[in-house]
Amino acid sequence: MSERPDFFARHRDLLERAIEATRSRDYWSPYPESPSTSVYGEAAPAQGEQAFRAHLGRPFDLPGHPGQGRTPATEVSPYGFALEVTYPRVEPDEAVAAARKGVPAWRDAGPDTRAGVAAEILARINAASFEIAQAVQHTTGQAFVMAFQAGGPHAQDRGLEAVAYAWDAQRRHPESARWSKPQRKGGPLELDKSFTPVGRGVALVIACNTFPTWNGYPGIFASLVTGNPVIVKPHPRAVLPLAITVRIAREALAEAGFDPDLVILAAEGPEDRTAAALATHPDVRIIDFTGSTEFGDWLERNAPQAVVHTEKAGLNTVVLDSTADYKGLLGNLAFSLALYSGQMCTTPQNLLIPRDGLTTDQGVRSPEEFASDLGAALDRMLGDPARAAGTLGAIVNDGVRARIAEAAGAGRTIRPSARVEHPEHPDADVRTPLVALLDAADREVYTREWFGPVSFVIATDSTDESLRIFRETVRRHGALTAAVHSTREEVLRAAEEAALDAGVHLSENLTGGVFVNQSAAFSDFHGSAANPAASATLSDPAFVTGRFTVIQARRPVPAPDKDADAEPARA
Amino acid sequence: MSERPDFFARHRDLLERAIEATRSRDYWSPYPESPSTSVYGEAAPAQGEQAFRAHLGRPFDLPGHPGQGRTPATEVSPYGFALEVTYPRVEPDEAVAAARKGVPAWRDAGPDTRAGVAAEILARINAASFEIAQAVQHTTGQAFVMAFQAGGPHAQDRGLEAVAYAWDAQRRHPESARWSKPQRKGGPLELDKSFTPVGRGVALVIACNTFPTWNGYPGIFASLVTGNPVIVKPHPRAVLPLAITVRIAREALAEAGFDPDLVILAAEGPEDRTAAALATHPDVRIIDFTGSTEFGDWLERNAPQAVVHTEKAGLNTVVLDSTADYKGLLGNLAFSLALYSGQMCTTPQNLLIPRDGLTTDQGVRSPEEFASDLGAALDRMLGDPARAAGTLGAIVNDGVRARIAEAAGAGRTIRPSARVEHPEHPDADVRTPLVALLDAADREVYTREWFGPVSFVIATDSTDESLRIFRETVRRHGALTAAVHSTREEVLRAAEEAALDAGVHLSENLTGGVFVNQSAAFSDFHGSAANPAASATLSDPAFVTGRFTVIQARRPVPAPDKDADAEPARA
Repeated sequence: MSERPDFFARHRDLLERAIEATRSRDYWSPYPESPSTSVYGEAAPAQGEQAFRAHLGRPFDLPGHPGQGRTPATEVSPYGFALEVTYPRVEPDEAVAAARKGVPAWRDAGPDTRAGVAAEILARINAASFEIAQAVQHTTGQAFVMAFQAGGPHAQDRGLEAVAYAWDAQRRHPESARWSKPQRKGGPLELDKSFTPVGRGVALVIACNTFPTWNGYPGIFASLVTGNPVIVKPHPRAVLPLAITVRIAREALAEAGFDPDLVILAAEGPEDRTAAALATHPDVRIIDFTGSTEFGDWLERNAPQAVVHTEKAGLNTVVLDSTADYKGLLGNLAFSLALYSGQMCTTPQNLLIPRDGLTTDQGVRSPEEFASDLGAALDRMLGDPARAAGTLGAIVNDGVRARIAEAAGAGRTIRPSARVEHPEHPDADVRTPLVALLDAADREVYTREWFGPVSFVIATDSTDESLRIFRETVRRHGALTAAVHSTREEVLRAAEEAALDAGVHLSENLTGGVFVNQSAAFSDFHGSAANPAASATLSDPAFVTGRFTVIQARRPVPAPDKDADAEPARA
Repeated sequence: MSERPDFFARHRDLLERAIEATRSRDYWSPYPESPSTSVYGEAAPAQGEQAFRAHLGRPFDLPGHPGQGRTPATEVSPYGFALEVTYPRVEPDEAVAAARKGVPAWRDAGPDTRAGVAAEILARINAASFEIAQAVQHTTGQAFVMAFQAGGPHAQDRGLEAVAYAWDAQRRHPESARWSKPQRKGGPLELDKSFTPVGRGVALVIACNTFPTWNGYPGIFASLVTGNPVIVKPHPRAVLPLAITVRIAREALAEAGFDPDLVILAAEGPEDRTAAALATHPDVRIIDFTGSTEFGDWLERNAPQAVVHTEKAGLNTVVLDSTADYKGLLGNLAFSLALYSGQMCTTPQNLLIPRDGLTTDQGVRSPEEFASDLGAALDRMLGDPARAAGTLGAIVNDGVRARIAEAAGAGRTIRPSARVEHPEHPDADVRTPLVALLDAADREVYTREWFGPVSFVIATDSTDESLRIFRETVRRHGALTAAVHSTREEVLRAAEEAALDAGVHLSENLTGGVFVNQSAAFSDFHGSAANPAASATLSDPAFVTGRFTVIQARRPVPAPDKDADAEPARA
């Protein structure tokens, strides 16, 4: 047999650097975000596209994967063609049994080895970034550059961040210790103790349609590194990016001498209820979920055997008080609304503005004027069809289309959503953001999430009322992001206080190249268990510590060898 | 107004040392465990008893505590007298509302200040150790020395350990960071970020009858230090030790300038269902529970809004293979069974021994011979009534009495439980351990917990079968402790592997002054989320990280002042 590669030795420096980055929280990214041939090589884009095209119309090959038969093809590109890829069909019991086989060896390998294998998987995923980007684009509808960045390097960053937290948490305690307790009479009581991190059990990752890798990798890698096998249950409309991921993970595991079934793909047909069946399996002890509030809440209530991490819906809110850079504000906010047609869990929905207006360097703007200015900024940004398509991407599914139609009747539409012709993909359904005007009294409209390109300019009595609404609605309904614009330090402080009360991360006065709906691994926390939109943060110690337990053994220190004991006297 | 005391400065060295102890896991205890006048002062024992006596027959005074009226007196000493103490009666809504008042100031104070206040509370609790020991003795039935040690300094150790983990976890990330992302063109994108730990919400501690302080302190202190107010719901039969604790906590909080209602006592009458009402209150976001499997499971299923830490029942198991010190084994195990009449969550219940016998330095002992030898060791240890009473304590409640009666009909009794006359308290119900012989086939008997002085010697086909039963029963039903005796390294290794599979901490070959049912703070983990007997470990990072979230705010770095910018050129 050939010698096993030492992936830990290969990636140790990277892993140490990653932990350091989680502590300093300054800018760091090991995986270049630019889809540039100068970084990834001349051939990379074409090879990636070729690899993607080679999957189409074929059974996806996962050698040795458990299961009987194939799932029906369920994926259709939002750019207008069916992927026609089938995957192994594996029953929940079968998946769990297969996943458990490799656990003892994976546990005994220890945290260093597991972190090394995870880092190797990520290195290979990074090398496949162009292939994965194509798969992400044609399952989520993201434009290519975004699919590359968010679905590739940024997702990889989040994966490595989870590896770093998971590895670090398992190094919090020593592998062994000697305990020596002085006694009043005679020698001390002495024990030798050992401490072994043990995974909690089978982990289930239930991924979403819009960000299969970015939202999926943290749970996958956090569970794997803490000693757990992982069953990846993709959304039926976004299987391929995770199937490629699972294939790579299985290959690296096998090369390192471990059971490839430590990572399993649980694809499903349109009628299957695989997620619920797996989530309630008694051996499934960890669940990571991204998706609807309804199913997330169901999981939190119906899988008490598991630790459940959820990311659900929320009311992302912007408090508009005043600005010294109105143009910058409009451009920045317009881009946040337009990016991927607002189909992000982080896109602002509720824009709270005093009825008396927003104070700006261009004068006071009433709510209606502001909504109109925002619409004009969107028009300018999206005037060129190629640039518009590159920002908006395509509409991911009928749910979003239905909400856009419904939103046309909500409040007073200031800027309607419009179709944009995609220059390359005539069948792609590309839509621009809708901006509607509401009053603070229209609670029943703005206290539900309108996932997609729908935002409301909401007139309030004052910034104080805006902050009150922000605090109350986010506390009650949750949010993934919040923002404030003010030139007054006391308003910024009050917004920070309200954000602490509501339990949401806050962005202040963003007018340049950083957007509220972007969060950078190793520096920005994504999500917060402190409000109902999520039960977890990507990533932090709470995201990893529930995935393993340190099990201890202790035994008396052996009595000293008598000759050895006598040694000093002889010396 | 007088200046606030700086409790953090006062206790900083202790806190740093405590964190270091959680990392090294060697022996460390800041609170002397000996109830000795040379440590605590000549007057301490008498003053403690006097303070305890002063509570009897009176309404317990908690100045400023919310509530209307008093609970009926519910505590009766297992040593034969009613305490006749009443407590404030506070409705769940009222308790939660009062607890929440002080949260913003407590949050804004930051982790250092909170840890300092907690350490001060513990210092004052330590000074009250004799008073608390009396209260523990006369609510739990523990003998005085054990009530002092386990209810006093050892509980304080566990409290400080939780403070250390909670403080450390909040220092994992910086308070602020500057993020600077290089751009291809122009200067970097720069943001200033702040990170603030925010408590999850109101914490509820549901304490037990037998170890109100030892099992209660970790949750109380972990929640408090992470920024949460704490409602302490004592067992109706063991209120006083926690009432004294709450009084001390409120005094220290008030002195430090905080709302004393950050710690509230929720005593209840015998008909009240306060625990369930509080546990399902939407603002109660953290629950720590010690008690029955039934209610623990109910909490895990019915309080999805909260993170729930439970310690429930289990099947503490000893695998007996061989020993080089049979006398030491018998003496050590007999003490473990006798201590507090086996009314510990850590007392061994199932003693697995090969049908062919245990190999010892005194020859091979069959299961029946071993059971008989163990009975004889118990007789020797408990022959002197004063010493017996000092070890056994008194039976805590009717549930234990009923199980002893029932156990007389379970399997073949080799050593019956017997009453012992207490030399000082003629009304105390003191009982010795029962030892019965079972076969491995008698699963229905030994796969339930017999909390109290009931243990089974279970004959198995071999040590291999013993290990199989150990692994399977603990995996399924849970355990707080496990032990093995063997002279063969391969058996010890196999037992360690089985313990990792079962998710339970293992003690090996204990024949001296360390007992399986003792666990030392800062070195031994107590409990494990890896088996059904508990969902938490006292204390580890997982025990604290779910109690708070780090909330982030970010804003662009201000443009440099032009004059300041020009400075270097002028210099």
